[in-house]
Order: sequence, then C-alpha cells, then structure tokens
Amino acid sequence: MKEKLTIVKVGGAVVEDEAQLARLLQDFSAIKGRKVLVHGGGRRATKVAAALGIESKMVNGRRITDREMLEVVTMVYGGLVNKTIVARLQAIGVNALGLTGADFNAIRSHRRPIQNGVDYGFVGDVDQVNANGLSTLIEAGLTPVMAPLTHDGEGNILNTNADTIAGETAKALAVKYDVTLMYCFEKKGVLSNPDDDDSVIPVITRQDFIRYVADGIVAGGMIPKLENALVAIEAGVSSVIITQATAIDGLQGTVIR
Amino acid sequence: MKEKLTIVKVGGAVVEDEAQLARLLQDFSAIKGRKVLVHGGGRRATKVAAALGIESKMVNGRRITDREMLEVVTMVYGGLVNKTIVARLQAIGVNALGLTGADFNAIRSHRRPIQNGVDYGFVGDVDQVNANGLSTLIEAGLTPVMAPLTHDGEGNILNTNADTIAGETAKALAVKYDVTLMYCFEKKGVLSNPDDDDSVIPVITRQDFIRYVADGIVAGGMIPKLENALVAIEAGVSSVIITQATAIDGLQGTVIR
Repeated sequence: MKEKLTIVKVGGAVVEDEAQLARLLQDFSAIKGRKVLVHGGGRRATKVAAALGIESKMVNGRRITDREMLEVVTMVYGGLVNKTIVARLQAIGVNALGLTGADFNAIRSHRRPIQNGVDYGFVGDVDQVNANGLSTLIEAGLTPVMAPLTHDGEGNILNTNADTIAGETAKALAVKYDVTLMYCFEKKGVLSNPDDDDSVIPVITRQDFIRYVADGIVAGGMIPKLENALVAIEAGVSSVIITQATAIDGLQGTVIR
Repeated sequence: MKEKLTIVKVGGAVVEDEAQLARLLQDFSAIKGRKVLVHGGGRRATKVAAALGIESKMVNGRRITDREMLEVVTMVYGGLVNKTIVARLQAIGVNALGLTGADFNAIRSHRRPIQNGVDYGFVGDVDQVNANGLSTLIEAGLTPVMAPLTHDGEGNILNTNADTIAGETAKALAVKYDVTLMYCFEKKGVLSNPDDDDSVIPVITRQDFIRYVADGIVAGGMIPKLENALVAIEAGVSSVIITQATAIDGLQGTVIR
C-alpha cells in the first residue's frame, strides 16, 4: 500500500494577508504525514513591477513575461513569497524546503511557443517533474514548498502557472504515493448557485462535469480548473479537493473523483 | 579518511557580469567531488531598493536592514541571484539546489543586538549550521547554493554576511568532511604590495598574520577576512584559499593554514 501524500495549492495572495497566512500555515502544519505546499505569485509581483516602472502586460487574463518581468517574478515568487512561507513553517515545526523547478531539476519545462500570434515570453509549459528527487527529499522528512517557477535546462527560469505545478507534481508523485491534491480558492467549493456560498457541490465525476458544463452550472475559469482536476484523477491521483484556504482540514469543499 | 568537500564563496557582483558568471560557473562545475557554492548579494539589492524608493542606510560600511530592505534582500539574494545561479548550474550538469538558512533549518541565527548605539535591524549572527541536513543533501548528490540569508526560528528571515555563511558552514562540515574553503575576491590573493597584483603571498599562518598586521602589510578589510580564515583553520577546516573568482582551479591565490 502506498503512503499518503497531501499536496496543497494556495494562491500567492494568502501571503499578503497576515491573518490568512497564519491560519493557512497552522492548518497546513496540522496535516498528518507527507505533504507538499505549492504557492502562487499573488498581486505582489504586479506591485513590485509597477514600483520598478515595469508595465504588466496581460492577454486574455494571462501575464506576458518579458525579461524584466521574469526578473520580478523570480524575485517575488522564488525569493519573497517562497522564503516567507518557509521561515514561517519552520517556526511552527514543519521542516520546509523552498524550491523552484530549477532546484535539483525538480520541474523541467519548455518555453511556450507563440500561440495565435501571442508570445507569452518566458512562460514554461511543464515537460517533466523529477518524482525521484522530490520523493528523496520527502522521505528525508522534508516538506517541499514550491514556487510557480520552472526551468528549461538551458539556464533559463520560466514562469509557470501554480495550478499546473500542483497538478503535474500530483500526477508524477501518484506513481509513488496515494496523493490527495487540494486546490484552495476563494469559495468553499464548486457552487451550484454562484449567489449562495453554501451551495457547495460535494462530489463531481467526469459525467457530472459534462452535465454541469452543458447546464451552465460550471462556467468560466472553473472549467479549466475542473478539467485539470479530472485529468489528474485519470492519471492516478486519488482525489482532488477544491475548497477554501481556510478549510484544508478536508471537512468541506468539492471532491473530484 | 574523510571525503573531500570544496566550499566556494563568491560575491554577488559576479552574477551581474555575464562573462564573469559564465566563467565562474564553468570553473565551479569542473571542481571534482562534493562542493557547495555560497554567494553574496551584490549591488543589485541597492539598485532594486533605490528603484523602489527605499533608501540604503549604511553605518561603517555595513548595511542597515530595516523591514523594507529585508524584503528587498530576500527577493534579490534568495530569488533573483540564487535562482539565476541554480538554473545556470543545472544547464552545465551540476545538480544545484538553492538554499537560504530557513530551508530545512540550514542556518539558525539570532538578530544582532544593538551595538554601540547602532541597530542593524534584521541582521542575523549565526548560531548553528545544520551539518546533518546539509550532508544528507550532499550525499544525495546535490550541490547546495547558499544565499546570504538565515532565519531566527521564529519566522523571520535575517540578512547575514556571505563570508560568515561560508566560514560557519565550513566549520560545521569539517566534522564530516576534509574541507577546503575558497574565498573569491577581486585580487589574485593577499598582496604583499597593494600596487603589484602579482605580489601574492603564497601561504599565511597565524604567526605570519600577526607579523603582517604589525608591519602594515595586511590592513583594512583584509584583517577580518584573514582572522575569519584562521579561526576556520583552528576549528578544523583543512585549508582556506583567498583568490580571484577566475582562479578557483586552486593553482594560485593565498593559502591560509
């Protein structure tokens, strides 16, 4: 029987709110057994870039990462956000180790090709997660804390979506562990009625998903989130839970299976 | 017999010069056996702070690290400089892993008390290097790349001098390894005549040091550098070499023993 492993993905914004951060890290520290934390970037990179006179360029809600912006996200995600979380976890007894995909070649990616005329710049699409390396660290008692940065193996850091990092890491580690993947976002779970925060759908399967999309109950940004979750399940991840950062004790939220 | 381990300390400025960086990393990759790279911060933090409208305050040539400056050095040293080096080393076959002292509790420090009325702010004086943790990573085939940041165990990152990080790490690892510590700076070695770059003193012992200081041959910032090197030797480090970043093949420079 495989050992249990919990992977929690949180947005970078949680680091910007002291009360939320303290609660999240406390809840995370209470998760028993092997675990991994994946964090996003948050609004801080945009703020730092603006202060440095670097314009944030977005296309269809996605950040264009030119060379200057790559330096900003490397600083903010890999330095400020990652190390703040690591130091805070150490203080509450979690032996955290901060990582980007470059560290021990944890996640190799390739630069995204120009799509529909859009050059996303230094953005990486994941090729391979180093499951052996990660499990060596985990089995040594460490808790990886992963920033949304990867590398191309040719010396370049690439900006990579944190949901993707979490999903790809979960799939790679599913070969060795019984993996639960928790995606934290601002709602308690996937809602059947967007105006009712308590209308959490408890379980979603592939069949449910198809029906909810057809009925318009699942729409917008939730479609790729659920699609990724279902792909993870189909690749061997035991369960994916979509919930709030304040509810990672697993007693609420939507379970995808 | 203990395994050999080489610890190389370079200034952060080397990262800001593409030609210097490429050569340093190539030379570092050529060092046989177990190794550790420790890097400083460089002028980049001052530039980023200035661009963010944060004033760099210095007292006696040392940086005062207030909360805003701590965020800048955490970004620049822990993010930009560290991850740039790690990604570049990965590209040339070195399985690098970037670290601050917070990561797996690598280096614990305490905030420096007010000295002669000067509050250095979030500056850490080293208490303990986690030699067991570091050697576990090294024995797993990894090459630690250490940023000049430590933590206090209470959730705070602290700014720590890179020479100190290198020296304390060398002393702690000397229990397990036959350690050579190389301090890279702008000259070929310790010079007997500051106007002659080729007047490198090949060997300095404690007795030589006392004599050179009395004669005024060793002065200024070289005094604490050599004092630290001699303390490392007296604590069990096999040899300390002071040389240029472009000469870490060990064929020149000043050997302290």
